[in-house]
Amino acid sequence: MPDLATFLPRLDAGMREDPSWGEVASYIPELARIDPEQFAIAVASADGALYQAGDADVPFSVQSVTKVFTLAIALGRSGDQLWTRVGREPSGRAFNSIVQLEQEEGRPRNPFINAGAIVTTDEVLAGRPPSVALAEIVQFVRAAAEDDEIHINDAVAASETAYGHRNFALAHFLAAYDNLRNPPEMTLGTYFHHCALEMTTAQLALAGRFLVDAPGLPRLVSRSRIRRLNALMLTCGHYDGSGDFAYRVGLPGKSGVGGGILAIVPGRASIAVWSPGLNQYGNSLKGTEALARLARAMDWSIF
Amino acid sequence: MPDLATFLPRLDAGMREDPSWGEVASYIPELARIDPEQFAIAVASADGALYQAGDADVPFSVQSVTKVFTLAIALGRSGDQLWTRVGREPSGRAFNSIVQLEQEEGRPRNPFINAGAIVTTDEVLAGRPPSVALAEIVQFVRAAAEDDEIHINDAVAASETAYGHRNFALAHFLAAYDNLRNPPEMTLGTYFHHCALEMTTAQLALAGRFLVDAPGLPRLVSRSRIRRLNALMLTCGHYDGSGDFAYRVGLPGKSGVGGGILAIVPGRASIAVWSPGLNQYGNSLKGTEALARLARAMDWSIF
Amino acid sequence: MPDLATFLPRLDAGMREDPSWGEVASYIPELARIDPEQFAIAVASADGALYQAGDADVPFSVQSVTKVFTLAIALGRSGDQLWTRVGREPSGRAFNSIVQLEQEEGRPRNPFINAGAIVTTDEVLAGRPPSVALAEIVQFVRAAAEDDEIHINDAVAASETAYGHRNFALAHFLAAYDNLRNPPEMTLGTYFHHCALEMTTAQLALAGRFLVDAPGLPRLVSRSRIRRLNALMLTCGHYDGSGDFAYRVGLPGKSGVGGGILAIVPGRASIAVWSPGLNQYGNSLKGTEALARLARAMDWSIF
Amino acid sequence: MPDLATFLPRLDAGMREDPSWGEVASYIPELARIDPEQFAIAVASADGALYQAGDADVPFSVQSVTKVFTLAIALGRSGDQLWTRVGREPSGRAFNSIVQLEQEEGRPRNPFINAGAIVTTDEVLAGRPPSVALAEIVQFVRAAAEDDEIHINDAVAASETAYGHRNFALAHFLAAYDNLRNPPEMTLGTYFHHCALEMTTAQLALAGRFLVDAPGLPRLVSRSRIRRLNALMLTCGHYDGSGDFAYRVGLPGKSGVGGGILAIVPGRASIAVWSPGLNQYGNSLKGTEALARLARAMDWSIF
Repeated sequence: MPDLATFLPRLDAGMREDPSWGEVASYIPELARIDPEQFAIAVASADGALYQAGDADVPFSVQSVTKVFTLAIALGRSGDQLWTRVGREPSGRAFNSIVQLEQEEGRPRNPFINAGAIVTTDEVLAGRPPSVALAEIVQFVRAAAEDDEIHINDAVAASETAYGHRNFALAHFLAAYDNLRNPPEMTLGTYFHHCALEMTTAQLALAGRFLVDAPGLPRLVSRSRIRRLNALMLTCGHYDGSGDFAYRVGLPGKSGVGGGILAIVPGRASIAVWSPGLNQYGNSLKGTEALARLARAMDWSIF
Repeated sequence: MPDLATFLPRLDAGMREDPSWGEVASYIPELARIDPEQFAIAVASADGALYQAGDADVPFSVQSVTKVFTLAIALGRSGDQLWTRVGREPSGRAFNSIVQLEQEEGRPRNPFINAGAIVTTDEVLAGRPPSVALAEIVQFVRAAAEDDEIHINDAVAASETAYGHRNFALAHFLAAYDNLRNPPEMTLGTYFHHCALEMTTAQLALAGRFLVDAPGLPRLVSRSRIRRLNALMLTCGHYDGSGDFAYRVGLPGKSGVGGGILAIVPGRASIAVWSPGLNQYGNSLKGTEALARLARAMDWSIF
Repeated sequence: MPDLATFLPRLDAGMREDPSWGEVASYIPELARIDPEQFAIAVASADGALYQAGDADVPFSVQSVTKVFTLAIALGRSGDQLWTRVGREPSGRAFNSIVQLEQEEGRPRNPFINAGAIVTTDEVLAGRPPSVALAEIVQFVRAAAEDDEIHINDAVAASETAYGHRNFALAHFLAAYDNLRNPPEMTLGTYFHHCALEMTTAQLALAGRFLVDAPGLPRLVSRSRIRRLNALMLTCGHYDGSGDFAYRVGLPGKSGVGGGILAIVPGRASIAVWSPGLNQYGNSLKGTEALARLARAMDWSIF
Repeated sequence: MPDLATFLPRLDAGMREDPSWGEVASYIPELARIDPEQFAIAVASADGALYQAGDADVPFSVQSVTKVFTLAIALGRSGDQLWTRVGREPSGRAFNSIVQLEQEEGRPRNPFINAGAIVTTDEVLAGRPPSVALAEIVQFVRAAAEDDEIHINDAVAASETAYGHRNFALAHFLAAYDNLRNPPEMTLGTYFHHCALEMTTAQLALAGRFLVDAPGLPRLVSRSRIRRLNALMLTCGHYDGSGDFAYRVGLPGKSGVGGGILAIVPGRASIAVWSPGLNQYGNSLKGTEALARLARAMDWSIF
């Protein structure tokens, strides 16, 4: 098994060889103008060390990766009652599909597709002002990363709001099925803001340590909940590319449209990768490939 | 961590306490007349031991559990080329749905839904007489279990054929999309027969050892293929209840409508459970619960 | 063929015999509290006469029946260009389904399902203030009916807005596909208001005369457009019950969830019926039956 | 209004001007090799005259146009009970879609999509040998056309069988839902044979007269049934292009993949057109256009 301190720079160099970087997300200007030719990887290991390579200190928009943190908070607030409002099954659909929502009468398939994350955000909001709920979310992420510099990019949040017609449609649809407890605008405002969290790849790897379950790492949720969050990440964390990710990488992971992916090696490490170009499923093209190479080299597949 | 020799009988006793046994599959008489109030568990551990409790010596129809063995053989014959004909994503649908097949133009979502298993059977058949392909499948299972007594129940196969209109529809639909290389009747005949394999719970646990990846156990496929088979079992092995199984049990597994489930603890053990009553997803009700309890007690979740 | 002056009262009496009145729409309080045991019929014949029976002078909310008037205005403003934004095919779905909208990438199947009517409203709005567009719609209806008393019920419009999450979802979804030219709230405000038009059954029969194509009746659109509007009413006017209505009644018609139906006998008559109780498709139960009886008695089927 | 004897040749000449003839159906060799550059029109008027132009004496495969005759026979045998097995609503889907069949649990949307026509064929078969049922169908068509030369093309029927995987899938799917009373192979054999009926355009116009409802024309079904058959043809006769056909032509009609269309002007005429090239919906491209021109010129729209 290779040494991480020497392997990561080699992996970084290898990833920059292939000239195909994928397409960056283009639905909001703030993401569309990101230079696709960037790559970063960081590994926070169970022994407390942090290894990193590439553009690991460049902040990026974590987007859907925050759905893991929001879900952890929602489960902490509501426990298994959350599952009356949202399912735990892979969707077999695009991340922002509304079809399944109608077929399943307003209960999203899982907390990681947009509709499901709007529901978990609504659960976290719980009638409080958005600023209070957002403070709780940011505080959770900061505690996980042990870094108080992490913050929300307001320009990105504003842009999401301006171009968020599909998410407005999802939220109103949930409301039509009585599966929204706060006004759609309020829940969506909170949702758009926590998706606009900005972190460096190194910060994200650190923030993911609460899912590793190892002594000495920040412990924010119980052991059994860690396992369940990891199980959900494995079956549903990459939208309609979740099966492919499990097959190729073999680790629980959650991707964001900003090009970041958080992956967990239970008991061993939290990994973050970032490269803004996306593959056909909307997940980071080079990020996925880098995780496959790292997992193979380190023999880290959970299977 | 408890000792298996004492824990399994306790688990068996515990499982018999709850009077809800679920409903047996009723689509063919051979399955409909099975007494639902049966339960068995067997664990083949990496050190070569076999532990068992309950009705572990009663033979039952393994049904879709054979899809794991057929997939292993198909991958051995065709390698990654198989994936041009079938996908690797959870289906988000019932096991025998034809809707997705039309939406995805004849390429089944994964090898564990019926349409996908018909394709892998077609790949194994490869123009040979069904008897030759079936002999290969049976031989693979016997080698895995190290037990030459394992055989196909012809009455069950005949009954599947007689009541198999939906599978005939799937096969003809695949043919309409040019995704069947042998005549539908021939591929289906082979499919119905390997689904009619009969094993005891103990035999099934032994047959699953080729997926454990431990020295001393029968090795029939490469290490990287083992990991990928386990990944597919985790994301797709329980139809539209796969997410729930991963969440509750945390192990790769494959269920059959006969009430059997094969689950793998990578590097540690192969587990078989059997109880003919099914839950809402068509997976063994008590079998799933028993696996959840065993995995928790032994701390065997892969997450 | 019977005489209308004597037939309509007999029909009215006959319709009151059957104690099954259907269920009134319950999604807004203004409709939910309507007494279902009401029935009215009115026929404006090509010779200028008006026949009526039952509660034909009770005003009711015409709801989706206004989609015919709005479509006529939109076609008058934009001509065939309208069809780039909305189709002309029966939907095979419920009136407020969002599934088809995703499958067809934001182009509603026809102008009579909600999504399609939101698009035609958006076309009529055309950047003008809602009050101006609404004035045009009301003016068109008044001219058709030759009755300046027809007006919009603001309480109903307000209630539609308050309970309109599904329509908000449709409008935002259209916007996400760039098929909305005005802000969703503005188009929807206009839509909710014209759906809240209130007429008596007699007024509605008179308003429908512009679709009869007979000398002496108000002529608001060209002859070829009349035929096309009637064709659309026949194939799409009763949501997923359009085929059944054509089969049983044999006349172009448009129903509203308030229990009104406008039906046209080309060259001969405009018919309005009203009874607030609905059948399984969301169309007036007794209204449909009364039209079937009237068309049969008068030999008015177009087939 | 123009005189038919002079108008039809002019129409024929006009139709041959446009060099776009559409694509012929290619799923069986017998249809794929037809020369697309053919056009014919024939009108059998209520007064007993027959007008024709173009290739009106060239026999062609009527294909789905026979579904009208089979439906008439099935209704004659079973009456309204047929509607327990098949619906009366436009499908909003392609003619051979299997998706809707699963969503509606084995009850086809209408008798003119393939699945629905297989059900009506099954109803006509009614346990009798296929040859007897086919003799009844052929006899009905011959009586309608008053022409005993009309026959089935066995080569086409054989080819349909050889390439009919999708129809086999539909039939087995119906059987899986207990909506087939005869063995799938037997019902399909009958279905493939009646679809292989061969007629000239002139013969088809004559055969359609039983739907005109005029004195002196062959009367094979009751007046109320004629109206209902015409209503079904209007709402469902052109698959997912039915709304467009109603909008453009304004007449009940039924198309076949061989390029033929039968259209009815109630009380006035039976029209047949034929041109093998198809439009995007699978209906004759020039045939549809010719009907639109004829209906406009003769003022024959029913709307």
